[in-house]
Amino acid sequence: MKIDVLDRGFVELVDKMGDDYSAVQAARTSYGKGLTNKERDDRLIDYLMKNGHQSPFEHIIFKFHLKLPIFVMRQLVRHRIASINERSGRYTEFSEEWYLPSVIRIPDKDNRQGSIVCKDKEMNERAISIISEAYENAYAAYKRLIEMGVAKEMARIVLPTSMYTEAYWTVNARSVMNFLNQRADSHAQAEIQEYAIAIAEIFKTGCPVTFDAFIRHSYTGDLLNREAQ
Amino acid sequence: MKIDVLDRGFVELVDKMGDDYSAVQAARTSYGKGLTNKERDDRLIDYLMKNGHQSPFEHIIFKFHLKLPIFVMRQLVRHRIASINERSGRYTEFSEEWYLPSVIRIPDKDNRQGSIVCKDKEMNERAISIISEAYENAYAAYKRLIEMGVAKEMARIVLPTSMYTEAYWTVNARSVMNFLNQRADSHAQAEIQEYAIAIAEIFKTGCPVTFDAFIRHSYTGDLLNREAQ
Amino acid sequence: MKIDVLDRGFVELVDKMGDDYSAVQAARTSYGKGLTNKERDDRLIDYLMKNGHQSPFEHIIFKFHLKLPIFVMRQLVRHRIASINERSGRYTEFSEEWYLPSVIRIPDKDNRQGSIVCKDKEMNERAISIISEAYENAYAAYKRLIEMGVAKEMARIVLPTSMYTEAYWTVNARSVMNFLNQRADSHAQAEIQEYAIAIAEIFKTGCPVTFDAFIRHSYTGDLLNREAQ
Amino acid sequence: MKIDVLDRGFVELVDKMGDDYSAVQAARTSYGKGLTNKERDDRLIDYLMKNGHQSPFEHIIFKFHLKLPIFVMRQLVRHRIASINERSGRYTEFSEEWYLPSVIRIPDKDNRQGSIVCKDKEMNERAISIISEAYENAYAAYKRLIEMGVAKEMARIVLPTSMYTEAYWTVNARSVMNFLNQRADSHAQAEIQEYAIAIAEIFKTGCPVTFDAFIRHSYTGDLLNREAQ
Repeated sequence: MKIDVLDRGFVELVDKMGDDYSAVQAARTSYGKGLTNKERDDRLIDYLMKNGHQSPFEHIIFKFHLKLPIFVMRQLVRHRIASINERSGRYTEFSEEWYLPSVIRIPDKDNRQGSIVCKDKEMNERAISIISEAYENAYAAYKRLIEMGVAKEMARIVLPTSMYTEAYWTVNARSVMNFLNQRADSHAQAEIQEYAIAIAEIFKTGCPVTFDAFIRHSYTGDLLNREAQ
Repeated sequence: MKIDVLDRGFVELVDKMGDDYSAVQAARTSYGKGLTNKERDDRLIDYLMKNGHQSPFEHIIFKFHLKLPIFVMRQLVRHRIASINERSGRYTEFSEEWYLPSVIRIPDKDNRQGSIVCKDKEMNERAISIISEAYENAYAAYKRLIEMGVAKEMARIVLPTSMYTEAYWTVNARSVMNFLNQRADSHAQAEIQEYAIAIAEIFKTGCPVTFDAFIRHSYTGDLLNREAQ
Repeated sequence: MKIDVLDRGFVELVDKMGDDYSAVQAARTSYGKGLTNKERDDRLIDYLMKNGHQSPFEHIIFKFHLKLPIFVMRQLVRHRIASINERSGRYTEFSEEWYLPSVIRIPDKDNRQGSIVCKDKEMNERAISIISEAYENAYAAYKRLIEMGVAKEMARIVLPTSMYTEAYWTVNARSVMNFLNQRADSHAQAEIQEYAIAIAEIFKTGCPVTFDAFIRHSYTGDLLNREAQ
Repeated sequence: MKIDVLDRGFVELVDKMGDDYSAVQAARTSYGKGLTNKERDDRLIDYLMKNGHQSPFEHIIFKFHLKLPIFVMRQLVRHRIASINERSGRYTEFSEEWYLPSVIRIPDKDNRQGSIVCKDKEMNERAISIISEAYENAYAAYKRLIEMGVAKEMARIVLPTSMYTEAYWTVNARSVMNFLNQRADSHAQAEIQEYAIAIAEIFKTGCPVTFDAFIRHSYTGDLLNREAQ
């Protein structure tokens, strides 16, 4: 399962361990018991989520392949309960791949820390062209440095944080839920919201009962459609 | 794969994500590359281990079902990079299952903190009979308390730390290796050594190339047979 | 600050780093700013807690010395975001110190997993005397084994989980709050509730503004007196 | 204690909990004992380090204030056993502060992944001027976007990873040692080496006995002067 995100990014599920019933199995060990039938097992998932018993969900693991701008990576890596290996700009030359927004955001007057989409078409065009030109200048400088023989690890420091990078990200379902609480939320930066929504989609497909219970009892964000559940 | 340990315990592999080449895949992302051929991939595993690059091994996950005495559980749970759900004596009655050693250990005169097997047959028998009797007394008290109507969570506090408990233990390969360094070692208590050896066996079966490289470059214990590699 | 807990246990604050304003300082760095005045700083603490911004509270650290029964230690150690060093029964002989309840608990008919205090005085006495006798038998067996020359690490496995142990526990304020959510709650076992209440008291003394905001916005348990705030 | 690093960065010790003897105190609890005299306590620190007993060092905590380029921050944040709050480019405007190298590095022919200082003066000047100009262009674009009314969180994505950021970083001594093993090493990028050396200096000042034992028994890097110990 692979979902395109932003202009050139993606979230791809590469591997997975367990499903909804891995959490049930782990939780029932408390009682020296195992799985029973779907109805009772589903009810247990609901009960666990409702009562804040999150540890059983740690036995469900997702391994994602991500392609994302550096500034989004910088936010994702703050979630410490996860394993990450990222492409290194020290050893690999950056190709001409950056995130170019299709629309600009301006400060939200109603929410000091938020931003909203700019509806002024002319301003959008002007800003995007400034951004685009800045990228091209930076990338040209990078290429000139590489061609002169400067080490990649040094040349790359002229590149903007909008450059795309890639990573493998292995993370358990409990940590995914925590990530969604923080990032599938209108207070997060718009770009990481897109990644969070894609991750939620994959999580929902892999663990529909858990996802449903999460949205009902434990989700603190405001983006994932509660009605759709 | 299930391995019996001690008189009534076991280590069972319940689920697993990835294998040797998951680490290769994660590591090669640094270079923007993927798997090549077995020979080069194996060489990379060796290189990673030799140079202390352990993060790629976090993408290999094992989920174990363990049955083990409480005093061993107390040592295992100290390894924090792991997910555990344990049977609860608050909700489940303990059955008459305890660890009865088949042989006694005495202090090692050559190693102040170590212990060695007692070769005095008569002393062994006497000690084991004291232990066995102590268990039976404690368990009888437990049963009497339960029958009187005392809550299980309270009655259980008379039971010895040799009682068997069960747990699901999900742990990545990097954390498994750290566990083996500490516990597959003659300085660890003999009983957890047995569990560590069983876990090493399962790890070796699941990730033979990684295990081999671990023993060669990174293992700091003294129990796992280097020659056997 | 040292608070006695149960019949022989305690919680003692040994060291501490930071206070309420360490969280403010860490949070304001987001805005490239520092402390302002108490009123605004206190308002920021309230805002952080209300909006789930918990990371700034990780910069406040408590180091506790604890004396607690093994069965309580087994629950405490499950909180992984903490540093623990515990007295080892492998190297140190257990003295005759165990937790003897002053009152017995029986299952709560209204809450399948809970327990309530037994009001039957005669039953209380009978049960406590069974427990007490069980401890003495177990401890006598332990002493006999030690005297015979059995290694301490082996002899101790006959001892009950009510034996007192000691530990140093270093933990940040965010992890303390998570601990209080789980353990300063009527669903936790009564004995660890006592420890949680003592820890809450010390936390409140050291970080009164944070504690207040925690109780108002983030505490999910039911034991800490909201009125008292 | 504050140490300047690179052209505009620094490492400053803001707070600290414990010292060498906090580790001794934590370790001795294993034996139910406390501090004795300096000579024996120092010997215990040496013994702990030599035998890989690292958990007692977790009770020593450092809180640093760091100013560092984003690309260095990206490496530092990978050390997960730490608490970080960073200045946010979403809420704070970047000032004209970037890391401009005083000398360029070129690939090291003897070490495929390494880099060495360029001795060609003319090439140095040319490269630095390309870098400098690239920064100025990027920053000019950023300012234009801000002035047009683009949200800070969006405008900043044109800025290079050499921009300075600031953070509070709270980390225990065990994690510091792990950081030094990885980053106070010639295989790390030169810029983070500078930060690692500054952090080592502060660590050595605060915990001289631990630092000394670390260098002797546990340090795997190649930068910290063993002779100087």
